[in-house]
Amino acid sequence: MSEENTVFVGKKPAMAYVLAVVTQVNQGAPEIKLKARGKAISRAVDVAEIVRNKFVQDLAVSGIIISTEEVQGEEGSAPLKVSAIEISLKK
Amino acid sequence: MSEENTVFVGKKPAMAYVLAVVTQVNQGAPEIKLKARGKAISRAVDVAEIVRNKFVQDLAVSGIIISTEEVQGEEGSAPLKVSAIEISLKK
Repeated sequence: MSEENTVFVGKKPAMAYVLAVVTQVNQGAPEIKLKARGKAISRAVDVAEIVRNKFVQDLAVSGIIISTEEVQGEEGSAPLKVSAIEISLKK
Repeated sequence: MSEENTVFVGKKPAMAYVLAVVTQVNQGAPEIKLKARGKAISRAVDVAEIVRNKFVQDLAVSGIIISTEEVQGEEGSAPLKVSAIEISLKK
């Protein structure tokens, strides 16, 4: 699957990402992945739930993966570990 | 599965819940569920990742469910909708 069908959820309001997912669905994407790290994980779950409950009722969660990623901190410091989530949505 | 094998993740530091999960594993629980709502969802993922990476390496994520729950707001107001997660961990 290409990165095109992936929405990276960050610090914007959830509706910004909801709109991105709905747009991709309307453009015919067969599967969409929501990716988030750290505190944005809660928002990614919000986005998935809002899309499914309010906008695209026939979209289902086809898989959820959690993992740990390393993020480079300030120069010279050890890399930070941060939790990540990947939520796959499919018609 | 009884509620005994469920850890509700809230506002405490992640390590408090990590300790609760590790204790249940050491008491022989075959499967443990982590439940969280709203902003605590990110912390529940942190707890699952910390337990698996640092404390109980042979524990695997056996399932993740996301959902929407209704929470009663102030008296007379409409119920609030909040996202929820349930992470199952199994040996």
